[in-house]
Amino acid sequence: MKKHNFSAGPCILPQEVLKKAADAVLNFNNLNLSLIEISHRSKDFVDVMENARSLVKELLNLPEGYSVLFLQGGASLEFLMTPYNLLKVNGKAGYMNTGTWSTAAIKEAKMMGEINVFASSEDKGFNYIPKNYTVPTDVDYIHCTSNNTIYGTQLKTFPKTDSLLVCDMSSDIFSRQLDFTQFDLIYAGAQKNMGPAGTTLVVVKDEILGKTGRTIPSMLDYQVHIKKDSMYNTPAVFPVYVSMLTLQWLKDLGGISAIEKINEEKAALLYAEIDRNPHFVGYAAKEDRSLMNVTFNLTNESDKEAFDKIWNEAGISGIKGHRSVGGYRASMYNALPLESVKVLIKAMQQLEK
Amino acid sequence: MKKHNFSAGPCILPQEVLKKAADAVLNFNNLNLSLIEISHRSKDFVDVMENARSLVKELLNLPEGYSVLFLQGGASLEFLMTPYNLLKVNGKAGYMNTGTWSTAAIKEAKMMGEINVFASSEDKGFNYIPKNYTVPTDVDYIHCTSNNTIYGTQLKTFPKTDSLLVCDMSSDIFSRQLDFTQFDLIYAGAQKNMGPAGTTLVVVKDEILGKTGRTIPSMLDYQVHIKKDSMYNTPAVFPVYVSMLTLQWLKDLGGISAIEKINEEKAALLYAEIDRNPHFVGYAAKEDRSLMNVTFNLTNESDKEAFDKIWNEAGISGIKGHRSVGGYRASMYNALPLESVKVLIKAMQQLEK
Repeated sequence: MKKHNFSAGPCILPQEVLKKAADAVLNFNNLNLSLIEISHRSKDFVDVMENARSLVKELLNLPEGYSVLFLQGGASLEFLMTPYNLLKVNGKAGYMNTGTWSTAAIKEAKMMGEINVFASSEDKGFNYIPKNYTVPTDVDYIHCTSNNTIYGTQLKTFPKTDSLLVCDMSSDIFSRQLDFTQFDLIYAGAQKNMGPAGTTLVVVKDEILGKTGRTIPSMLDYQVHIKKDSMYNTPAVFPVYVSMLTLQWLKDLGGISAIEKINEEKAALLYAEIDRNPHFVGYAAKEDRSLMNVTFNLTNESDKEAFDKIWNEAGISGIKGHRSVGGYRASMYNALPLESVKVLIKAMQQLEK
Repeated sequence: MKKHNFSAGPCILPQEVLKKAADAVLNFNNLNLSLIEISHRSKDFVDVMENARSLVKELLNLPEGYSVLFLQGGASLEFLMTPYNLLKVNGKAGYMNTGTWSTAAIKEAKMMGEINVFASSEDKGFNYIPKNYTVPTDVDYIHCTSNNTIYGTQLKTFPKTDSLLVCDMSSDIFSRQLDFTQFDLIYAGAQKNMGPAGTTLVVVKDEILGKTGRTIPSMLDYQVHIKKDSMYNTPAVFPVYVSMLTLQWLKDLGGISAIEKINEEKAALLYAEIDRNPHFVGYAAKEDRSLMNVTFNLTNESDKEAFDKIWNEAGISGIKGHRSVGGYRASMYNALPLESVKVLIKAMQQLEK
């Protein structure tokens, strides 16, 4: 029996994607060769890379002037590449701090220049999204994190700025409709809604690059990667291929508008149960609740053993909360079926009985 | 029919590894979950990482005091991490230039300090390994590349130095017996003898780190990765797993001493044919010939169409030479069967007839 996989990341991927990925490991495109033993410069893999890039542009509805890259190193390396590529020598940047990942991004950027943390929700354990902040104007760029996996909060609106706007969308890209042209740089580790761990999506507006006055090491320079179509060095072949399959799956499903409806339905059901069921209490402020990661605690910690037994027996996996929040976290990425959410809700209702 | 895969990298992997990898994409460790949809912090994956690390230590016969890491970014990112971690502020380093990859390593290092290229074979299209060079003594480290995939040359001995010795072994690690303790830092992109593209092996002597006086960004800092057991951020799960399988395959086969014999046999056969057959001429200086990448040209370019037809029909793939050398390159990594070499030799003999 397949598990109900609520893992926070790496996380559930569509079954048909897993099947195609396994097939390609044995025999790719009927070449009688495995996907992972052919040259990344072969036509068959170059097609994969081009297709993945074009699916991203189509799904995000990007106009001309944006480049799409598949790099390595995860969002963590992007924390460094962002200031390397956008922070002017002696320049400043503004960061919004909404959790663990924002905090890590701020730490790396501080090594390279003056960082103004203009909004933070650290005072309440990052359980809400700051509002009524003043966006600094004397900065090279503004950085924010669209969704906070650990705390279960999500930005519903983004900072308004005349500077460049950068967003780490690792945990909610391709999950909801946004005007993606409001951003100048978007990056996302693949391992939530896009594919397996090992590749990082970067979407960048070409005209913003090459203006810092810095010498940028080749591997950290977006312009180097753009010029080489993400093949400056050997890309992470398998993760890029599986990302392409997942993007194709999403397109076939109807794209972001279609998956958004399903994601909203899943989240509405689970939050309704959390609010209704006296045995549970939500962690995040209601107006900032994430559609992707639902964080909740037991009202009474003594129910833990009973509840853990119930969901384990129901074939649920991956709902243990992050150590910094405790309790439970149900991550409901694009590939998680509505059925799995219903099974979790049933488990919560069983505890009530 | 399975191809005879002479690809220069990504390259051939053992059939049994491909089969196990495909199985794990569908159902890993009988968890009823795919390898690529579980948390990298789950016990099942932590075991993979630990096992991979311990296999490296065992196969390379490393004593205490070395750390083994599985990072991202390929050797290209190591070109930058090496000076970040080892080049003192206002320090110097010595580099040996034996080809395209050394040249790229030198370029990155030069952004960070004074680089002395104390030996180079650029004068003859990198078709030999420099000898009789003087190793500089006023440097923080010496850097070399053990095998040059494009030109088909290989270092048989390494620079003697009292400074630190760094080696890029991307294309021949695990292929021959060496005293690996002569090196202070070894790095290697996985996609030759170790696994698929997407992870990079780093073997580093702990005591050499933390001495440069530099502020190192987290993702570029070996000490950060050591402290977190290669899980500072989400590792490239699938590439690490397949690397573990390949290392296990090598161990089961008898380790490096066993594969070295097979590699020597394969290389001896093919070089003998190149030297015997008047239709072909080797590219690399005989004494510097690589056991991994055999580069050769047609004596008469007009044979090209005929020879290409012959090897294509024999089910051979991936022997087109790199554009900077032309001709042919037969890469014979660990997983390439002797049988494939014999098929290639037969094709060469068929041209003669």
